[in-house]
Amino acid sequence: MSDRRVTDQVRIVGSGLLGASIGLALGAKGVDVIVDDASPAARRLAIDYGAGRAPAEGDAPGVIVVAVPPDVTAEVVAAELARFPDALVTDVASVKLAPLAELRERGADLSRYLGSHPMAGRERGGTISARADLFEGRPWILAGHDGISYGRARPLEDLVLDLGAVLIEMDAVEHDRAVALVSHAPQLVASMLAARLDAGTDPALRLAGQGVRDTTRIAASDPALWVQILGANAAAVADVLRPLRDDLDAVLSALEAPEASGSRRTIAEVMAAGNAGVARLPGKHGQAKRFATLVVKIDDKPGELARLLTEIGEEGVNMEDLRLEHSPGAQLGFAEISVVPEAAHALAAALEKRGWALGEEDR
Amino acid sequence: MSDRRVTDQVRIVGSGLLGASIGLALGAKGVDVIVDDASPAARRLAIDYGAGRAPAEGDAPGVIVVAVPPDVTAEVVAAELARFPDALVTDVASVKLAPLAELRERGADLSRYLGSHPMAGRERGGTISARADLFEGRPWILAGHDGISYGRARPLEDLVLDLGAVLIEMDAVEHDRAVALVSHAPQLVASMLAARLDAGTDPALRLAGQGVRDTTRIAASDPALWVQILGANAAAVADVLRPLRDDLDAVLSALEAPEASGSRRTIAEVMAAGNAGVARLPGKHGQAKRFATLVVKIDDKPGELARLLTEIGEEGVNMEDLRLEHSPGAQLGFAEISVVPEAAHALAAALEKRGWALGEEDR
Repeated sequence: MSDRRVTDQVRIVGSGLLGASIGLALGAKGVDVIVDDASPAARRLAIDYGAGRAPAEGDAPGVIVVAVPPDVTAEVVAAELARFPDALVTDVASVKLAPLAELRERGADLSRYLGSHPMAGRERGGTISARADLFEGRPWILAGHDGISYGRARPLEDLVLDLGAVLIEMDAVEHDRAVALVSHAPQLVASMLAARLDAGTDPALRLAGQGVRDTTRIAASDPALWVQILGANAAAVADVLRPLRDDLDAVLSALEAPEASGSRRTIAEVMAAGNAGVARLPGKHGQAKRFATLVVKIDDKPGELARLLTEIGEEGVNMEDLRLEHSPGAQLGFAEISVVPEAAHALAAALEKRGWALGEEDR
Repeated sequence: MSDRRVTDQVRIVGSGLLGASIGLALGAKGVDVIVDDASPAARRLAIDYGAGRAPAEGDAPGVIVVAVPPDVTAEVVAAELARFPDALVTDVASVKLAPLAELRERGADLSRYLGSHPMAGRERGGTISARADLFEGRPWILAGHDGISYGRARPLEDLVLDLGAVLIEMDAVEHDRAVALVSHAPQLVASMLAARLDAGTDPALRLAGQGVRDTTRIAASDPALWVQILGANAAAVADVLRPLRDDLDAVLSALEAPEASGSRRTIAEVMAAGNAGVARLPGKHGQAKRFATLVVKIDDKPGELARLLTEIGEEGVNMEDLRLEHSPGAQLGFAEISVVPEAAHALAAALEKRGWALGEEDR
């Protein structure tokens, strides 16, 4: 196809969700994709699935993507660098410092290695979950280092852009600290909080609302994968969790003596620090802009939400976000609709005129 | 109106969000609602707002609802019990053991007191945020105790049902433990996790995805209110957070020596306990049933989501839940649509036939 950037052969090692998705997407653009896997059966499945062709004598890939489990990433990258002395090699592991350090120890040719991290996982892995559109609009970090020249990265940038991903440059240290903060620590905290629910009575759990659901949703993630990820980024994750433990110790002391001098202040300060932290999260499209939220009551029957959204469209308003809130035991719910603040007032009036019951939230 | 259960006068003390919402809802049903407030200005505002009429000589309320801040709840309940010796008095504080204990100490007539807890807060409080439909479909706990007879609770049950709430009976100890588990501890944990974000760099925060957003959303709550709530339920919240601190200590030790014997096992066990805990949360409508999730790609332009939902309706499928997922920097998103498992396969096929790009998630 005429709009693609990649011109070289691309070799993919590892045919799981990420590897197969990259193969499907590049193949659809007409790239000559070679797919390989330590398991011959897995390789055959990926080829049947359309993720690429089998390796052949005389293959000369320009870019090699290593998409294998984190604990064997560096070993496979080193082998590929040695086997294809002209290729640029990347990996897609979700930590970036550990593979770089291991490659350095192995004496690999770092002038042709550039680590990357596509932030596009799914809860369900494997070749058969692969999608050509998996990376569209998702951040894809390139973790540059001193050993590679600026121009050498170009073929990988082209590949990332052909996949529809959003390119972000960040060094390995900065990357690992960032994902410790916004992904790895939240995962562990959600798991530790969710673990408490197992001791709850059924009536207690029936009182669960949206708050506890949101705070524990990601606790359903796969332990085996996370043990590898967390093990490879242990120091950075510990750096995030250590001050959290200090806060937790202070909060527990305050809760154990709620009337003691300073106890209320301790809790107020932790809550206020939480206010400040959550306000740092950028809004949709990476903007820091805040949206106004309208809350609309929805009867729980087919078509009601579609009707609401159609009518919002008829009012010419673009919805920035949508959240459904349910009531335990009830046959109705609330839709929280985020719109730009300028549109909120007129939209609220229009919806009420159309017969919807609503109230305006401030966030 | 003919369908209402409440027949007596209802007196509401405290004209904030909850008090005014109760007044609006009962008034709309034709109940004679008296609204009072320690602040004359606040009382006038609530009356102007339609939450009830001013108190008058000869008022004889059958039920009195005390809707004042937690730290003065017991004092006001005791005063109302003394002033209206025939009335049933309730409060709406989000803890139930502390007011009951304080009323016992004060020697109040507990045969006419029944604490309650409507789980229907909003982030924004105050009379002007009041809505007559605030309690519709929400759980409303009645915290029974030994000092009140079974039949004496009836007028309050009628009031709760007239408000459209879902009645749940639970004693004060059980209630406070339940809300510590599903509300108070998650609030503190979300705040402590969100507090970490304030130390993050802007590039790090740009990598934030749905996981960290969900786990920290409630960290935006009001510190002043939560200091009162947590102070009044301190022991039960500490009971939930203490084992979490033990887990956190173990996880930190594991992260500080990731290669040590047992470290990976510690992390795997915490993650597995999180899997088990989150699986305990009941699904929509209080059922434990799980839904199948379809992920559909949505272009970020007005009307796209409405079109999708309309087409889902045309396929005769009722959507059980909906979540929008955004990509930082991208002009597209994904809608995660939960449906009963039996409907998932046919709906996926139908949507793909209609031209939607999708993949099926297993949860």
